[in-house]
Amino acid sequence: MISIVKYPEKGSWSALLKRPAQDYGQLMNVVAEIMNAVKQNGDAALKQFTKNFDGVDVGSLTIESLEWNAASTISDELKKAIDEAYENIWKFHALQKSPEISCEIKPGVFCWQKSVPIQQIGLYIPGGTAALFSTVLMLGIPAQIAGCENVTLCTPPGKDGLVHPAILYAAKKCGIENIIKAGGAQAIAAMAFGTETIQKVDKIFGPGNAYVTCAKMMVQEFGIAIDMPAGPSELCIIADETGDSEFIAADLLSQAEHGADSQVVLISNQEKLLKQVVKELEKQLNDLPRKNIAKISLQKSLMILVNDLDEGMELVNTYAPEHLIICSKENDHLIAQIKNAGSVFIGNYSPESAGDYASGTNHTLPTNGHARAYSGLSLDSFCKKITFQEITQSGLAQIGNTIQTMARAEGLDAHARAVGIRLKNMRS
Amino acid sequence: MISIVKYPEKGSWSALLKRPAQDYGQLMNVVAEIMNAVKQNGDAALKQFTKNFDGVDVGSLTIESLEWNAASTISDELKKAIDEAYENIWKFHALQKSPEISCEIKPGVFCWQKSVPIQQIGLYIPGGTAALFSTVLMLGIPAQIAGCENVTLCTPPGKDGLVHPAILYAAKKCGIENIIKAGGAQAIAAMAFGTETIQKVDKIFGPGNAYVTCAKMMVQEFGIAIDMPAGPSELCIIADETGDSEFIAADLLSQAEHGADSQVVLISNQEKLLKQVVKELEKQLNDLPRKNIAKISLQKSLMILVNDLDEGMELVNTYAPEHLIICSKENDHLIAQIKNAGSVFIGNYSPESAGDYASGTNHTLPTNGHARAYSGLSLDSFCKKITFQEITQSGLAQIGNTIQTMARAEGLDAHARAVGIRLKNMRS
Repeated sequence: MISIVKYPEKGSWSALLKRPAQDYGQLMNVVAEIMNAVKQNGDAALKQFTKNFDGVDVGSLTIESLEWNAASTISDELKKAIDEAYENIWKFHALQKSPEISCEIKPGVFCWQKSVPIQQIGLYIPGGTAALFSTVLMLGIPAQIAGCENVTLCTPPGKDGLVHPAILYAAKKCGIENIIKAGGAQAIAAMAFGTETIQKVDKIFGPGNAYVTCAKMMVQEFGIAIDMPAGPSELCIIADETGDSEFIAADLLSQAEHGADSQVVLISNQEKLLKQVVKELEKQLNDLPRKNIAKISLQKSLMILVNDLDEGMELVNTYAPEHLIICSKENDHLIAQIKNAGSVFIGNYSPESAGDYASGTNHTLPTNGHARAYSGLSLDSFCKKITFQEITQSGLAQIGNTIQTMARAEGLDAHARAVGIRLKNMRS
Repeated sequence: MISIVKYPEKGSWSALLKRPAQDYGQLMNVVAEIMNAVKQNGDAALKQFTKNFDGVDVGSLTIESLEWNAASTISDELKKAIDEAYENIWKFHALQKSPEISCEIKPGVFCWQKSVPIQQIGLYIPGGTAALFSTVLMLGIPAQIAGCENVTLCTPPGKDGLVHPAILYAAKKCGIENIIKAGGAQAIAAMAFGTETIQKVDKIFGPGNAYVTCAKMMVQEFGIAIDMPAGPSELCIIADETGDSEFIAADLLSQAEHGADSQVVLISNQEKLLKQVVKELEKQLNDLPRKNIAKISLQKSLMILVNDLDEGMELVNTYAPEHLIICSKENDHLIAQIKNAGSVFIGNYSPESAGDYASGTNHTLPTNGHARAYSGLSLDSFCKKITFQEITQSGLAQIGNTIQTMARAEGLDAHARAVGIRLKNMRS
């Protein structure tokens, strides 16, 4: 069901941990056509695609005031859960506010850096059977804290032409008023180019299927920023004998149920633990509603037996997992060795699903090895940092020669002159 | 020479401020071929391209120990200038260190976020007549402060097969030991895929010509991160009667000399000032070594007369300039209105060239309107932020119901079970 690899040699690690290749090449023509149609025909194209792909004739692309009432139809239990998750996520992301930094670099040379919200942003929330209202919180809360001026949320309507009430409830909490009933590549195009109804945005956030991912990649060419490159979700667990096989199996399954392309990797120095986990997987798998999905993804997954957990951490850093669970008697020792990971879960009582919903951290994380160079979403993802400098006459006198010397050495004479002309014209 | 537009209507702003389109479509086939050759044939391909494009037969791609001695051959004046710039840039970027943030979200639910350096990075420094050693500082210093483990610097050799001594001097200061004599798309490919000599990197930084820019865009498809999308440099100045026409003209020229595709925009509520600046431009232009370049770029540039500077700031935010100079009797009032800009220079004695070299801020900034969603380079560009959570048994008991309720409502049963199985198995 899941392969066990024993003591692989270092030279084989990269190949062993290679993710299945993602190729959007075949989709690009289709997506380009969709994008072009939206660019040309705006709202009309958007409605037509919604009819074709989602099978719904939406009268209006926006949510009418009465439709918002549906938000209150979700159960009190779910409301309470969303409320608590909201509170926890808010708390952690509010801490991420960057203080303005400033410094008098030399007497009279003042520099500072300030965080400013991105003005127009677009959030994409996949629809379908499982409405990802948790992602509304993960994108909407930092946008709200950052103070982004215009937030547009696109999500495909259900067969009834309506948006899932839990998405409405979560959006309302995040102060999002502008919900557009549209999904797929056409929704990404609408946010990138703007239509009669939809304002053009500067940055697009959120997960989606292959068409959405491909469209997000392609709109970058038109100067639209995106949150991060997307890929299938993944979990890596590193554990010694303190790891609980029942919990580990449950975590592996929680990742495996995401999609047939999800990947899980378990690394341990305990062969016994690996064998126990295999047994547990077989036991727990049968009860799962999404067991067919989980089975396929487990077949492509790995258990790796290592000599010790230091070697295991080298493997972890080579893999650069989106999610990393650490269960060891030496947690702190291992944590100190982390170089590449999206979000880390420590100990037997920190399941990955806690971070998906309610611990407070963001669940939009770098997949596909991107954790080597990318961070998960944070407040910074919704802001830019602008630098400032104010130089006095005496400040410029201090650093003026340096600027002129360097500019001339780079052959940029006008750069030097912009300083020279000032040094000659000091006002008393 | 430069167009003056008086009181343009708001509806016309976007068209007025539109940048010339950049189209790399035609280059993509050539660049893909170069990239493929490097991927297949590594060092040999790299050397062959260097022979073809740079006209040099480099024996070794790396800098031999003796060649490093050339670093000391630059003038003492230039050494001193680089030393001072290094110190100022270091000071401002060291301030950007992100403190670890942490929080007990609920009793027993601990979350924190930590900045970790990107391990393998590649810096690209264009060569040719004007060796951009200042860019070595702008990329190398934050990499050094961040603590990136492996830094590779690629730069094309001169006709003599050597790297410019000032680049060596600046690289040495930044602790960069690994300099590769290669430029163009082939250098970007070498860093993206790795060769016998060059280690594969996770993120590539630095400016370059159209081939380099195109290659940087393309390697993203292979999972390599880049600093930011590139475009021609640009400067916007907003000034009232306190602006000095001589200084303003000098600043516009310092931007215009960068390249024929550079763009400058001057916004003022004073027609008199605009006319004075035009006169000054004509006067100063003639003395410039790079006047032919500056002339072409001025022809594509703009002066805009506005009713007042509040309107002017709306124009600025619509344009989202890379560099913004503010010279007004109400500087603070205008600064507070900045929504989109890369780096801002305040007052008559803060020329843009100060930021290019030595004020302390970074000169790698978002062009082409990307300042709407992107920041300039900062220490953060060389790090990722990893989040952590450690949840105790009682902590999980606190948030467990929330997680399970949300997971089930999203149809992710195994996510709920990963919590449920723990709640049932609390250890005493």
